[in-house]
Amino acid sequence: MPEKSLGVALIGTGFMGRCHAMAWNNVATVFGGARPRLEILCDADEEGARQFARQSGFARATTDWRTALGDPQVDIVSITTPNGLHREMAEAALEAGKHVWLEKPMALTLADARSMAAIAAARPGLQTMLGYNYLRSPAFQAARNLVAGGNIGTPLAFRGVYDEDYSADPDLPWSWRMTHEAGGLGALGDLGCHLVSQMLALMGPVAEVTAMTQIAVTERPSPEGMRPVENEDSALALLRFASGAQGSFATSRVARGRKCRLQWEVHGTEGTIVFDQENMNELWVHRKGDAGFSRHLTGPEQPDFAAFCPAPGHNFGFNEQKVVEARDLLMAIAGEQNTGPDFAQGYEIERIIHAMAASNGKPMKIEPRNDE
Amino acid sequence: MPEKSLGVALIGTGFMGRCHAMAWNNVATVFGGARPRLEILCDADEEGARQFARQSGFARATTDWRTALGDPQVDIVSITTPNGLHREMAEAALEAGKHVWLEKPMALTLADARSMAAIAAARPGLQTMLGYNYLRSPAFQAARNLVAGGNIGTPLAFRGVYDEDYSADPDLPWSWRMTHEAGGLGALGDLGCHLVSQMLALMGPVAEVTAMTQIAVTERPSPEGMRPVENEDSALALLRFASGAQGSFATSRVARGRKCRLQWEVHGTEGTIVFDQENMNELWVHRKGDAGFSRHLTGPEQPDFAAFCPAPGHNFGFNEQKVVEARDLLMAIAGEQNTGPDFAQGYEIERIIHAMAASNGKPMKIEPRNDE
Amino acid sequence: MPEKSLGVALIGTGFMGRCHAMAWNNVATVFGGARPRLEILCDADEEGARQFARQSGFARATTDWRTALGDPQVDIVSITTPNGLHREMAEAALEAGKHVWLEKPMALTLADARSMAAIAAARPGLQTMLGYNYLRSPAFQAARNLVAGGNIGTPLAFRGVYDEDYSADPDLPWSWRMTHEAGGLGALGDLGCHLVSQMLALMGPVAEVTAMTQIAVTERPSPEGMRPVENEDSALALLRFASGAQGSFATSRVARGRKCRLQWEVHGTEGTIVFDQENMNELWVHRKGDAGFSRHLTGPEQPDFAAFCPAPGHNFGFNEQKVVEARDLLMAIAGEQNTGPDFAQGYEIERIIHAMAASNGKPMKIEPRNDE
Amino acid sequence: MPEKSLGVALIGTGFMGRCHAMAWNNVATVFGGARPRLEILCDADEEGARQFARQSGFARATTDWRTALGDPQVDIVSITTPNGLHREMAEAALEAGKHVWLEKPMALTLADARSMAAIAAARPGLQTMLGYNYLRSPAFQAARNLVAGGNIGTPLAFRGVYDEDYSADPDLPWSWRMTHEAGGLGALGDLGCHLVSQMLALMGPVAEVTAMTQIAVTERPSPEGMRPVENEDSALALLRFASGAQGSFATSRVARGRKCRLQWEVHGTEGTIVFDQENMNELWVHRKGDAGFSRHLTGPEQPDFAAFCPAPGHNFGFNEQKVVEARDLLMAIAGEQNTGPDFAQGYEIERIIHAMAASNGKPMKIEPRNDE
Repeated sequence: MPEKSLGVALIGTGFMGRCHAMAWNNVATVFGGARPRLEILCDADEEGARQFARQSGFARATTDWRTALGDPQVDIVSITTPNGLHREMAEAALEAGKHVWLEKPMALTLADARSMAAIAAARPGLQTMLGYNYLRSPAFQAARNLVAGGNIGTPLAFRGVYDEDYSADPDLPWSWRMTHEAGGLGALGDLGCHLVSQMLALMGPVAEVTAMTQIAVTERPSPEGMRPVENEDSALALLRFASGAQGSFATSRVARGRKCRLQWEVHGTEGTIVFDQENMNELWVHRKGDAGFSRHLTGPEQPDFAAFCPAPGHNFGFNEQKVVEARDLLMAIAGEQNTGPDFAQGYEIERIIHAMAASNGKPMKIEPRNDE
Repeated sequence: MPEKSLGVALIGTGFMGRCHAMAWNNVATVFGGARPRLEILCDADEEGARQFARQSGFARATTDWRTALGDPQVDIVSITTPNGLHREMAEAALEAGKHVWLEKPMALTLADARSMAAIAAARPGLQTMLGYNYLRSPAFQAARNLVAGGNIGTPLAFRGVYDEDYSADPDLPWSWRMTHEAGGLGALGDLGCHLVSQMLALMGPVAEVTAMTQIAVTERPSPEGMRPVENEDSALALLRFASGAQGSFATSRVARGRKCRLQWEVHGTEGTIVFDQENMNELWVHRKGDAGFSRHLTGPEQPDFAAFCPAPGHNFGFNEQKVVEARDLLMAIAGEQNTGPDFAQGYEIERIIHAMAASNGKPMKIEPRNDE
Repeated sequence: MPEKSLGVALIGTGFMGRCHAMAWNNVATVFGGARPRLEILCDADEEGARQFARQSGFARATTDWRTALGDPQVDIVSITTPNGLHREMAEAALEAGKHVWLEKPMALTLADARSMAAIAAARPGLQTMLGYNYLRSPAFQAARNLVAGGNIGTPLAFRGVYDEDYSADPDLPWSWRMTHEAGGLGALGDLGCHLVSQMLALMGPVAEVTAMTQIAVTERPSPEGMRPVENEDSALALLRFASGAQGSFATSRVARGRKCRLQWEVHGTEGTIVFDQENMNELWVHRKGDAGFSRHLTGPEQPDFAAFCPAPGHNFGFNEQKVVEARDLLMAIAGEQNTGPDFAQGYEIERIIHAMAASNGKPMKIEPRNDE
Repeated sequence: MPEKSLGVALIGTGFMGRCHAMAWNNVATVFGGARPRLEILCDADEEGARQFARQSGFARATTDWRTALGDPQVDIVSITTPNGLHREMAEAALEAGKHVWLEKPMALTLADARSMAAIAAARPGLQTMLGYNYLRSPAFQAARNLVAGGNIGTPLAFRGVYDEDYSADPDLPWSWRMTHEAGGLGALGDLGCHLVSQMLALMGPVAEVTAMTQIAVTERPSPEGMRPVENEDSALALLRFASGAQGSFATSRVARGRKCRLQWEVHGTEGTIVFDQENMNELWVHRKGDAGFSRHLTGPEQPDFAAFCPAPGHNFGFNEQKVVEARDLLMAIAGEQNTGPDFAQGYEIERIIHAMAASNGKPMKIEPRNDE
């Protein structure tokens, strides 16, 4: 781990803001290296910002995000604000010469994501990192390594879903998140992009998608009466990978009883791997000749777990994924390979989910990344 | 149960032949009514036929299936021969005035299935039944009843797979089963049709499919050298149901470690049901307001289980599904509603899997059944 | 399988009577050999006996069990009557020169079991078999073979439970089954004896037990008012095996939500095996060096499964255990090793559960069997 | 949460030292209130202490634990050193007027634990807390609340195990931890005490234990040759609770394949609850009338989860248990009820596990706590 301490600004104090704060506080305890300096905390609410800064150890607080970006003590900006603010803040941070850690989805529109990727590409000295937490769990990393290492032979097929039920209740009020303009994509933007991030890590580039979407609850109550839901509650897709493998893909925000079912399997010529984020400390592996599937509990033999805990079977937590993400960003800044997704890779994810959203049952080609 | 004893001919003594024999021997012990008369057993091997007849209680044996069909003591013909013989035998049996219990898949080609359905339709006094065993388990019947009864509200989405790994080994020798002419469809014909049978029972008619297929092992060893595999090792599909619901579908015969993974879930507006045939005595149900998914063990409160065993949690077996199927055929012959799939419904299943096989990524409309 | 056909009498047409009838009808279809002759069916209800005989293929019916025992066409008597009749019927059958297949528990009292074992021992030409079904599932047989074959090294510890909830409801009416005189032991006699049968097969003889029992519902409603429950609702025990291994043991008939939870694990020096009868088609095995526990689905590589079905993952059923039991009895009669439990082994099981019932927290020695 | 910031000294930088450091860094981010001041870090290794202090945000470092205890800026001392040092350090800390957060097991001997409890009792103004992490997970807290709230009626029975396999390998070298003098109890002291802590929280006081212990690997290699293992590899016990309920108890450090199997179930008159720490984000609940067991995924409706994450199904981690523990200690210091186990309750746990170790098959009475 790098020994040079870097200054951090954090924008936002919600679910992900707190998660970033915890990660910045613990990354050096877990992985060693220099403890990051928590320089400035920004939130629209002045007293809230001050209080959160005190609780989480930030030296200063502000309500003006441009102040945070411009702070000369700051090297890295954590952006955890609503999606509609991502482009403006991330681009401004890069233009201010800061490394950027941005929550997903990258942007509301494909055009925004393209612009952000271009601006990042023009500043090769700055690192970008998107908050695809689920790539960081020890079990997922172990799975990716097993696939990449040929442990299950050549991948033939991917089957993945990411289902939750937070929008299943038809009485849930209408919100701007359900509009194209302010919310962008629906289940694809909120959930599907996570599944794409894992799929790319496991299977490599996507060549073609054919998808259908569905709005299960077409209008919702608001103070002004019923208003239409514009973005999709669920999506289904078939995929052709550049490798020749095939895949199926599904995501829903109206799947009753599902809470964080980011579940997939990879079928290889010599084995199968199965994972479900609701049991994120289990990986199921079958290799040819085995009597069945074996349940691998997360433990020190999986990547990064030992730094958190030497004892196997002692569960890794959702929030701890973020500590690994912070470590990966720090390593990239220190000159190691950026494990990503950076903005270039994030733009690829956006192209895939926007192609799904637009497909309506027709095949959509996915162009390779420029940098590949 | 009917009190009139019916005479049975059984053609074939393989996996399914034995399964039919067990069913005919136990159907009256389990469900009451008249014990069927096991009149004649037919197998190509003379001594084998005689021996199996003795062991299973058949009065006579023959090597000539036309003799079996023509036997005046016979009311019902169980046909469990290789798929390429289905059409000829089933049509001859109907023409001989016998009720027919035929194993799936119905036929090698869509044209054959159409012909069979037409011949059956012309003989309304004769009952036909296809061996879609998995429709008969208490857990599946309970699931279908929950869906049909509105227990999970309106179905929104279906997600289904049927995976096995019997062809995963690339050293598995080439066989005629892997040709279009003698084997018909591949994974779709062997496995996918079962999944379609359950999907139709749960979700109602399919309006459109968009599918892709894959041959994972393109050629296989034979005494004459490597020969090409013609039919699909796996298939993936998107579905639009007539109801407006959507679905995803996958089947593979090369999914390492999967043995009988006929697994699906139905997302409804008020709940979700999940099933996996590898644990066929469990049904997982979530209804809105529940704290999680509940694991329903098969027991007497599910359809037909109590006739086999009064005690819950005492596992129902694969072979016992066939006893229920025999009962359903006997009830249909006695004048009750044929729960099917009869040949008309079987032809619908064939149209769907053949559309999947032909789709190659393009949407294929599925016309409604004539009888609907 | 033996080629000489044997004549069968079946006494009783309840849960287990039907189960025996199914087994006798299918044993030759499954395992080959001569089809048993179903000679005579006995039930106290005349019309019921006649009807069941017709449905299940028995040639004759009677209401007099002594007639059935005395029938010269009969070689084997299946006894499935209430526990209080076991001793009289089994001893009479042996005295009539018949082989005996008797449901568990063997007898109401230890003295009865001792008498039965003595009478059987005096007739070495006759085979006895007790209906400990759970010993016959492919998964259990596979587990026993793994342990016996040293696959998990030397067994160190056994942990076993058998819980159900059929008596959990305090409003369940009082019955004679809850008395010592007519019902014998409670949970130990009904459930615990099954667990002992598996434990002995896995771990070898028990040297000492220390146990406690509990009556959870001390009195129950009857037409004459509340009446006391005399036998135990649950029992707990510590065990020392003759091998030096140790064990824990628990059984309950008041464990809410448990339906057939006959669950145990064996810890060996080189591995661990875990089983639960509620998922009787799964065996969980860990061997040193493995990354986790592996889920072995029942399939043709486990004992006896292939005779029922060639396809792995196609669930074996509770009732099919009985077909294996029938086969084992037929093999013993034909001169093979009786795999038991015969009456000598059954008496050993009775000694253990009666010691548990009497222990009240004090260590009770278990004497070795005479025949060991 | 209290608004007065307290000063913290941490002794030890191993597994638990890091865990305490993470907890102190995040407790205010998670729960609000004043951020603790990380005053001084103590470790025997000077450079290690300095480095860890920098990484984790401690202001000072020392190699002298008495310096840490005597620091006037320090209000609370976290003690995470080897068990043999617990008594001396904890008593010194109390005598220095500091609140104490001490890892388990409390002490090597029962006499030490008694002394510590007495010294704590004499200082009612100081709070003590023992590191029984597993009491703090949202799922366990939810379970305890369900039991305490009568959700499953009156508890009848407890069945608990805590198994790991860290000592299963016979080639694992001998260590002082395996001696009575330096290591204290074996599996009971390391694992069993955790299970007792949960059992007491669920079931209330224990009245009597009857136990057996076993040393599976009796001697182990050391540089001086084979040396004997003195403390138990496993233990089994029967329990009578003061309430009249009964229980079984087992713990092993040689259970192959088990990594953190702290698994128990409580049978109540109206329901059953089942938990396994290896899947610490699942609680299984059955209530009378339910169709089966329901799988409750950890989420915001369980105690304390929402402070870490608003989203259900997003796994809580092992280390996060410690943040809840820190919060509970801070609340106790601020005047709220100490949820414990404090030293008085810790001594009760020690009395139970020492009684188990001494029982050798004989019933051992457990006297009630003085403060109860």
